[in-house]
Amino acid sequence: MVNTGVISGSGNLMDFLDEPFPDVGTYEDFHTIDWLREKSRDTDRHRKITSKSKESIWEFIKSLLDAWSGWAVMLLIGLLAGTLAGVIDLAVDWMTDLKEGICLSAFWYSHEQCCWTSNETTFEDRDKCPLWQKWSELLVNQSEGASAYILNYLMYILWALLFAFLAVSLVRVFAPYACGSGIPEIKTILSGFIIRGYLGKWTLLIKTVTLVLVVSSGLSLGKEGPLVHVACCCGNFFSSLFSKYSKNEGKRREVLSAAAAAGVSVAFGAPIGGVLFSLEEVSYYFPLKTLWRSFFAALVAAFTLRSINPFGNSRLVLFYVEYHTPWYMAELFPFILLGVFGGLWGTLFIRCNIAWCRRRKTTKLGKYPVLEVIAVTAITAIVAYPNPYTRRSTSELISELFNDCGALESSQLCDYINDPNMTRPVDDIPDRPAGVGVYTAIWQLALALIFKIIITIFTFGMKIPSGLFIPSMAVGAMAGRMVGIGVEQLAYHHHDWIIFRNWCRPGADCVTPGLYAMVGAAACLGGVTRMTVSLVVIMFELTGGLEYIVPLMAAAVTSKWVADAFGKEGIYEAHIHLNGYPFLDVKDEFTHRTLATDVMRPRRGEPPLSVLTQDSMTVEDVETLIKETDYNGFPVVVSRDSERLIGFAQRRELILAITYGRGLLTRALCPELSTKKRV
Amino acid sequence: MVNTGVISGSGNLMDFLDEPFPDVGTYEDFHTIDWLREKSRDTDRHRKITSKSKESIWEFIKSLLDAWSGWAVMLLIGLLAGTLAGVIDLAVDWMTDLKEGICLSAFWYSHEQCCWTSNETTFEDRDKCPLWQKWSELLVNQSEGASAYILNYLMYILWALLFAFLAVSLVRVFAPYACGSGIPEIKTILSGFIIRGYLGKWTLLIKTVTLVLVVSSGLSLGKEGPLVHVACCCGNFFSSLFSKYSKNEGKRREVLSAAAAAGVSVAFGAPIGGVLFSLEEVSYYFPLKTLWRSFFAALVAAFTLRSINPFGNSRLVLFYVEYHTPWYMAELFPFILLGVFGGLWGTLFIRCNIAWCRRRKTTKLGKYPVLEVIAVTAITAIVAYPNPYTRRSTSELISELFNDCGALESSQLCDYINDPNMTRPVDDIPDRPAGVGVYTAIWQLALALIFKIIITIFTFGMKIPSGLFIPSMAVGAMAGRMVGIGVEQLAYHHHDWIIFRNWCRPGADCVTPGLYAMVGAAACLGGVTRMTVSLVVIMFELTGGLEYIVPLMAAAVTSKWVADAFGKEGIYEAHIHLNGYPFLDVKDEFTHRTLATDVMRPRRGEPPLSVLTQDSMTVEDVETLIKETDYNGFPVVVSRDSERLIGFAQRRELILAITYGRGLLTRALCPELSTKKRV
Repeated sequence: MVNTGVISGSGNLMDFLDEPFPDVGTYEDFHTIDWLREKSRDTDRHRKITSKSKESIWEFIKSLLDAWSGWAVMLLIGLLAGTLAGVIDLAVDWMTDLKEGICLSAFWYSHEQCCWTSNETTFEDRDKCPLWQKWSELLVNQSEGASAYILNYLMYILWALLFAFLAVSLVRVFAPYACGSGIPEIKTILSGFIIRGYLGKWTLLIKTVTLVLVVSSGLSLGKEGPLVHVACCCGNFFSSLFSKYSKNEGKRREVLSAAAAAGVSVAFGAPIGGVLFSLEEVSYYFPLKTLWRSFFAALVAAFTLRSINPFGNSRLVLFYVEYHTPWYMAELFPFILLGVFGGLWGTLFIRCNIAWCRRRKTTKLGKYPVLEVIAVTAITAIVAYPNPYTRRSTSELISELFNDCGALESSQLCDYINDPNMTRPVDDIPDRPAGVGVYTAIWQLALALIFKIIITIFTFGMKIPSGLFIPSMAVGAMAGRMVGIGVEQLAYHHHDWIIFRNWCRPGADCVTPGLYAMVGAAACLGGVTRMTVSLVVIMFELTGGLEYIVPLMAAAVTSKWVADAFGKEGIYEAHIHLNGYPFLDVKDEFTHRTLATDVMRPRRGEPPLSVLTQDSMTVEDVETLIKETDYNGFPVVVSRDSERLIGFAQRRELILAITYGRGLLTRALCPELSTKKRV
Repeated sequence: MVNTGVISGSGNLMDFLDEPFPDVGTYEDFHTIDWLREKSRDTDRHRKITSKSKESIWEFIKSLLDAWSGWAVMLLIGLLAGTLAGVIDLAVDWMTDLKEGICLSAFWYSHEQCCWTSNETTFEDRDKCPLWQKWSELLVNQSEGASAYILNYLMYILWALLFAFLAVSLVRVFAPYACGSGIPEIKTILSGFIIRGYLGKWTLLIKTVTLVLVVSSGLSLGKEGPLVHVACCCGNFFSSLFSKYSKNEGKRREVLSAAAAAGVSVAFGAPIGGVLFSLEEVSYYFPLKTLWRSFFAALVAAFTLRSINPFGNSRLVLFYVEYHTPWYMAELFPFILLGVFGGLWGTLFIRCNIAWCRRRKTTKLGKYPVLEVIAVTAITAIVAYPNPYTRRSTSELISELFNDCGALESSQLCDYINDPNMTRPVDDIPDRPAGVGVYTAIWQLALALIFKIIITIFTFGMKIPSGLFIPSMAVGAMAGRMVGIGVEQLAYHHHDWIIFRNWCRPGADCVTPGLYAMVGAAACLGGVTRMTVSLVVIMFELTGGLEYIVPLMAAAVTSKWVADAFGKEGIYEAHIHLNGYPFLDVKDEFTHRTLATDVMRPRRGEPPLSVLTQDSMTVEDVETLIKETDYNGFPVVVSRDSERLIGFAQRRELILAITYGRGLLTRALCPELSTKKRV
């Protein structure tokens, strides 16, 4: 513990100053905290409370409250993060449907809610109910025909532009820090950097509101990354209520790590995956205690979201899937191919996105953020509307791609030619030849895939909240579903081939295209973020079964290898690098054997190292040293001759200590003067 | 890194000796390893491999193999642990049924397998099939009546005694370390202690075989704790195949931590819970890398067990449950009561068990382990047979207690009086008045509960493999089920009471007694082991839903509080303490401010501290010091006057260094002599 006292080496200043310095322990903006000192300050605080707690019952209760404040903060974070996630889900649901039409019975109902409440609909017509009116029906009383189509098209674009414009304006005016996914900055903050206001109350409020707007606008972005930022803002807010956390930047970061876990927990409905995401991807210092608290926060958040029940199906997870057939060894080959695709997509995305963001930073483009958002939104809306797979919200698309084709599935993707002689239970449908719908769907999916790939590169990094979990997963799911249908048809038409003969007899349900979509989604997400274990666990929580662990692992690991071969940086590290934040990855291993003396020795002709010596310096010497140099801190050594290191004193703290010491002296010598001065 | 060189402070001995010492890095039995040195040795090794890998392709491949050896070990551990667990499950299944009867078609079939293969049985008669013969049917051709009952009773006792005798004899003769649950010892080993042979191949083999025998004998013990020991033995075996792990006690312990996770993973079918158990309860040093590897090992193990499919239902988890009704706030009160019961049971069990084990250690009792096992087995078998809830295997009992009463349930516990007018779907049965069967069941359960509580205290700690997860859970499940039935009947008969009025209308299914059993099991397990988070996660994996997180958490936390109020030690810590192993809990916080100088200063009249000085000592001085004292190591200081600490040298290493140095000198001076000597 080198640096616990302020000038630990230089004399007995600390013994003289009984009161703590008022400002020590706070850091300036864009500075890095001293982990060791924060740790040691917390230990001191804890010792003081423990020794005091034996004095009286009141102090004992206070010590209990202090011990429980960590859990209380977690409970509050979980409750707020879960509530916010639920509200965001409900609002997005409603506003996404608002682009298409409105509910006559109550305008705040989404399409689904509107048709639920009307009793006239049967199961087959559940998408059509008289109370839900498309804009063309409402405005010109036409539901079919070219003019109705064009009117709906225009309304769709207009709403999208309105949402996007509102979002980018709110961000620009009220909270510039609310843009982006926030994960690169949170990683930097958790590693000990200070960015004031990044986790502030305004950021929380504006990010929540604008997140709803941008997701509803149909842009190619997701809400998962920003939800982590929102949860961290909650964490920062609640930690400021307890002095244990508000006064210690190290302890505060423990709370933020747990809050990040709660954020992912509600984003995917995967509490365990959330904790592991925080551990693998975001956090820097993660002691065992934080692990338990993260679990608690993640569980409370998930439970809160579950109680709000925004998806109306009492399922917690975002994409609940249930497959009925196992996978076969031979399928590992396409799974690994999907892994390769994921890795390539990751590399392509990171390279292009970073190049575009750099261009935005360095050219005139960066001066017109509102115009940029409007333009991208317009292009997205115009291109997206005609294709049914891009028109709907991306998470609905992923959900459909993941789904297995059951007997009741009405999706175009499930338009297989049924054998009329076959009667089977509902959930065990054999492989069948693809119908016209499936071929149409494949074409549309291919176009949607190309469009998604291109537009996501330009969308991520604009001045609006934007996550890329969902777009990445969508890219992978589309590719995966196409591969899956291909393998399925190949197996159906050529079941006598040697690779199919063992496991795919006619009339058997041997290939599940939905599983391929899921594996593809995992691979693409892995390629972009370079997560492995937390990714597999999140996917595992989505399916709720161990069955598909091996395919998912194979794809995730292949994708990471392929992507790593082209460059070690994940998208978050690349953005940290681009923004020039100081970040030392805790997972990097350094195998250099160079000693600090070799690289830090002043060059010939330069002045000697500026140091504080243990005994022989006066306050004046120190002040001269501070005035003449602009270093952030000075090593404390025994003497000029023996230069043995004793400690390190920061410039800022030296100045504070001298000012404070002088103030004490003035007060001691002429008390009236100093009291006056203070008032 | 104080202690990386051997006598880091005393001169330049290391520069002189280019070759590493042959025996440094191995430790004597019952000694504690030096974590820092192991860590630094591994860093050195890693640096050497990295720098070499640039030299040739062969070295590069070797470095890759080295990097992947960690994952390879995990894969092997997962495969072997999963396979062993599957084999144990199958064998226990067969041998438990062997106590009752035998399958005529193939003697190696268990009751269930035997009746599956015979086609003559219908669903209702699935317990009765002609191929399965009770001993009385086979031997005297009688299936009913008093004489048949007595014959079956006798055969049951005989088989139990035979199994127990075999087990205790095998343990005594071949592997004395195979007894007990193994978790206290593994905790100690992971904290850095050396117990040679504890994780050896013989222990692995004998523990696996005897575990099957004792579980089948019907003793009140479980296989979960010993499975952790078995998995750790696998880990130790595979780590000895790779020099990276076999030559570094620190790295080896990382493998063992992961193996412990794999053990719990297969014990409960809960891979994530297994990793957290290893983290919370067993491990000492658990870096992030170990976390990922543990996950991998746990998943592979679970997947292997799943492929073996010992329970024949393609479910992974030991007690799969699915409840159909939510819980209500008012139910928290009985849940917390169950928590209190769990805490009290934990305290009672730990106190009594430790007292009994101490008596065993200190009196004549300990000299007759075989007799003790035989006696306890005889008592268990005699008392257990007449009661249907103790006759069957404990995990079957827990499974039945956890189960919700569906429409097809034929268990005595589900003998409710049906309303003939009511027609309902299969899985939504309203609360009904209890029938005669339920009241009988409650009496039998109460007797079984008392018996289990008493006999478990005497069973745990005998010289056979014995875990206490299952007995603890059984105690809790029995108490919980009784409370649950009580609450259910109260709610049914008094649904107009104010506490029931809001959520329990007549005809509604409002209370699930199975859930109470589950909460009770968690509470009792928590009281004994003091786990919290990993316990909740294991239970969460059993139910596979977030729904019941709050009841489980409430019970687990209450139980821990109540138990902690009577004594901080869990059963494993208590056994570590009893056996006198050196164990410093990593979770303890020490807030003392005493300096080492205050407590370690030699008392007046005693000789001064024995130290090595940096420059002024000769080899002879060192040898004299070694001869005259019996300390395990000596501090290295600058000189007698300034006593500033530079390092610490262990006695054993000093001796080695001197012997080795002398050998080198001899070889240098008279090479022929030393070569001869070596041959």
